[in-house]
Amino acid sequence: MKRLKIAITMGDPAGVGPEIIVKMFKKENLYDLADVFVIGDLFPMLSAQRRISSSISIKPIIKLNDMSCDKNVINLFDMKQLHLNDYTIGENRAKAGAASFEYIKKAIELAKAKKIDAIVTAPINKHSLHMAGIKFPGHTEILAKFTNTKKYAMMLMSGKLKVVLATIHTAIKNVPKELNIKDLTELMELTDRSLAKDFGIYGPITAVCGLNPHAGEAGAFGKEEIDIIAPAIKKVRARGIKVEGPFPADTIFHKVVNYKTHDAVIAMYHDQGLVPLKLLSFDTGVNVTLGLPIVRTSPDHGTAYDIAGTGKASESSILAAFHTAIEIAWNRKGKRIEKN
Amino acid sequence: MKRLKIAITMGDPAGVGPEIIVKMFKKENLYDLADVFVIGDLFPMLSAQRRISSSISIKPIIKLNDMSCDKNVINLFDMKQLHLNDYTIGENRAKAGAASFEYIKKAIELAKAKKIDAIVTAPINKHSLHMAGIKFPGHTEILAKFTNTKKYAMMLMSGKLKVVLATIHTAIKNVPKELNIKDLTELMELTDRSLAKDFGIYGPITAVCGLNPHAGEAGAFGKEEIDIIAPAIKKVRARGIKVEGPFPADTIFHKVVNYKTHDAVIAMYHDQGLVPLKLLSFDTGVNVTLGLPIVRTSPDHGTAYDIAGTGKASESSILAAFHTAIEIAWNRKGKRIEKN
Repeated sequence: MKRLKIAITMGDPAGVGPEIIVKMFKKENLYDLADVFVIGDLFPMLSAQRRISSSISIKPIIKLNDMSCDKNVINLFDMKQLHLNDYTIGENRAKAGAASFEYIKKAIELAKAKKIDAIVTAPINKHSLHMAGIKFPGHTEILAKFTNTKKYAMMLMSGKLKVVLATIHTAIKNVPKELNIKDLTELMELTDRSLAKDFGIYGPITAVCGLNPHAGEAGAFGKEEIDIIAPAIKKVRARGIKVEGPFPADTIFHKVVNYKTHDAVIAMYHDQGLVPLKLLSFDTGVNVTLGLPIVRTSPDHGTAYDIAGTGKASESSILAAFHTAIEIAWNRKGKRIEKN
Repeated sequence: MKRLKIAITMGDPAGVGPEIIVKMFKKENLYDLADVFVIGDLFPMLSAQRRISSSISIKPIIKLNDMSCDKNVINLFDMKQLHLNDYTIGENRAKAGAASFEYIKKAIELAKAKKIDAIVTAPINKHSLHMAGIKFPGHTEILAKFTNTKKYAMMLMSGKLKVVLATIHTAIKNVPKELNIKDLTELMELTDRSLAKDFGIYGPITAVCGLNPHAGEAGAFGKEEIDIIAPAIKKVRARGIKVEGPFPADTIFHKVVNYKTHDAVIAMYHDQGLVPLKLLSFDTGVNVTLGLPIVRTSPDHGTAYDIAGTGKASESSILAAFHTAIEIAWNRKGKRIEKN
């Protein structure tokens, strides 16, 4: 079987990206699972390597064929975007934002050309992106744009729970207005397809949360379940897709986590899905973008400027993202790998 | 030391109340901790006893002094509200609602007269209450009314987490409108006072959730943190009360549960607090009414008509409620008991 090729984008050079990448190579022999290389810049990677581990070395590569698979070597596809004084750890800079954008574009280009099988993205900083005049709010939208993807969604997952969000960075007061049958229908279909195709689940079943307490209790505390969520579920079920709900959020997560009643939960808003997810697995959450033609995963944390440069940031989440990328990449090739 | 006296109200006769009460007496020797009796009716208690355990007997008592403390005996203060055909398990009836209301009133009367130290309430059914012309939405409001309490709140707790709700059965779209500085301020003070007085915590620290994702991210996704929650916290802190926040909900529960950073969390709405609580301890959650002059706890489930009469309902939650009532009663007397 041909080995997988995985690119890890370095993310914002001023954040924890470079050091969690060094830490993940130090922690595990990633080459057991795939050919792996980093798309980034030499200075931040060398600086992180010096701080984290003297046994690791950084090997700049120009062609993918030059990759080493020696446990102690990090292959770096050096994008040569940054000089030493172009960034400062823990600070927002336009040049840092612009560089982090280039790494992602390169990764997308390689993935579209089938030169790599998956992208794992270290965190970028949206303020630095904005300073560089790049108007995307985050990775997801960049990936959607450059792969010309219209229907996509964010899944956050850990060992016991996969959560898909119907709204993300929306104020609570605007959440009810943003929900509609069309978008929810598409989200349910996208989730179902991803569970089958990306996670190799045969006949997946998705649970859908209500918006209101007790899922509205038959309209007593809110009508969105009756007017929007239940009709969307009905529509999707009519197409033979197994979606159930709307369930009261305070009971469904317990059931999914403890009794595996469903393969994923669609939450109506950010905290409804992320409170249970982060409670269960704070350091090992993985973000997966559903609906893309390419495979992309990431850790579920940001650039963490407050601890960047200290080496305190945990590599657990980006390592979990790497493992998930491998799993999805094999599943998309139709070659299931053994689950842990 | 004088023994505590605890009353357990039987709740709705058509629900799981009678059987979980029999099961809790069967499971543990409650008399190790207190003098205990049930305020209810003979038929439902005998029926539950017959279904659950032949080793338990029901002893009707007329005066509290007649109580037996024999492990296999349930003392029943028989309110003689119900004939056999006045209720049917799993069905709403006016007479059942009216009877459940009488049990609570009797318990409040005894508590106000200091004849008992705490009340543990088995679930009532609000539809049956309404059929009987009783307009209260639940226990909390009945207790507040008959003890003339203006400032009260609902705490839900389990071993690792105490959650107080700023809004409860409110549609998500109305939650932002219901939040205001005055009510939040009072809620924080009430929570602080209860942690000290009821739970014997020296110098308690309370965490307050934001309303919006990432607690609004400095106003980017909602202004309620800036306009309402932070000012309320500031006001209460100025009075020397340790309250912190507003915190993003998706990180604070993790910290409180895993690192004990705070003694309680104030959630802005139902699912924000109950999703993590029920995820951690589905069967052992306890509901405590804060701010009452009397001690009242209850299991965190309802009448569960769908399984009433089958004996399937778990006694774990009402047993935990009983233990919490004991803890609070001793703390209020200034006599701390050993924590588990």
